[in-house]
Amino acid sequence: MSVDVATGAEQDWMALAIELATTNVDSGGGPFGALIVRDGEIIATGTNKVTVDLDPTAHAEVIAIRSACRALGTFKLDGCVLVTSCEPCPMCLASALWARVDRVLFAADRDDAADAGFDDRAFYDAFKDPETKCPTPVHQVEMANRNAAFDAWRGKTDRVDY
Amino acid sequence: MSVDVATGAEQDWMALAIELATTNVDSGGGPFGALIVRDGEIIATGTNKVTVDLDPTAHAEVIAIRSACRALGTFKLDGCVLVTSCEPCPMCLASALWARVDRVLFAADRDDAADAGFDDRAFYDAFKDPETKCPTPVHQVEMANRNAAFDAWRGKTDRVDY
Repeated sequence: MSVDVATGAEQDWMALAIELATTNVDSGGGPFGALIVRDGEIIATGTNKVTVDLDPTAHAEVIAIRSACRALGTFKLDGCVLVTSCEPCPMCLASALWARVDRVLFAADRDDAADAGFDDRAFYDAFKDPETKCPTPVHQVEMANRNAAFDAWRGKTDRVDY
Repeated sequence: MSVDVATGAEQDWMALAIELATTNVDSGGGPFGALIVRDGEIIATGTNKVTVDLDPTAHAEVIAIRSACRALGTFKLDGCVLVTSCEPCPMCLASALWARVDRVLFAADRDDAADAGFDDRAFYDAFKDPETKCPTPVHQVEMANRNAAFDAWRGKTDRVDY
């Protein structure tokens, strides 16, 4: 989580992400905004719509990633940068990893989010120390066929890897 | 990540999650299936549709969570259990945390997923040691107004907290 020296273009993108986040509050959404940029072009934007859409996964970053994939007709965003008004929560950072973006840029951090009443920092802590800090119990159920789907996957010769 | 002694009902739910995951491979999706259960009733199911829907966030758990929220007309799944054929990746576990489910049950684990070619374990490692193990650079951009959206949020008296 080191600090970068941002270019003028990066600062412009971030200013837009913060503007999207701020105006989204007036629209009844959460205070978060994000963009996906490729080759200097804004491919997609997203704002937090958790309570508006009744969808706990509708964070700005997830919406921007999904929208960019639709725009580009792909499930891989290599060559793209995720620009977000706030440090992505673990859900959003992992979404960015699965989307294979090249870089993530953020402005406010997890401590700023915590000060505003959001669980981003607590959830990062849960990943660092799941035994004591995870708010939700996570248990393995012993199943003799637990790898049945992976066996089917390995046996499928025309599978689409991702 | 302790091991639970599963009840008969829990084993039945898990058998269905594994069946969904396995048949999903035939349908061209990834080898993952999930359910949301409340009071013994299956509220929603999900299967991995990353390559089918061109959506890197379309993991079985995320789809099941979104579908359950639509079915129940809420953005909070307290009282619900997430049952998934494989240990949720960080995106899916954090989705479950944001959704406020009571518990998460899984069968195969992150090592099984890694053996089948998926990045779940690598992404968990990235959260434990982001400086050396995160495959994607994550940088903070210094912005004087980085908390503008949070300030707007604090000032909104009719906000919907989540």
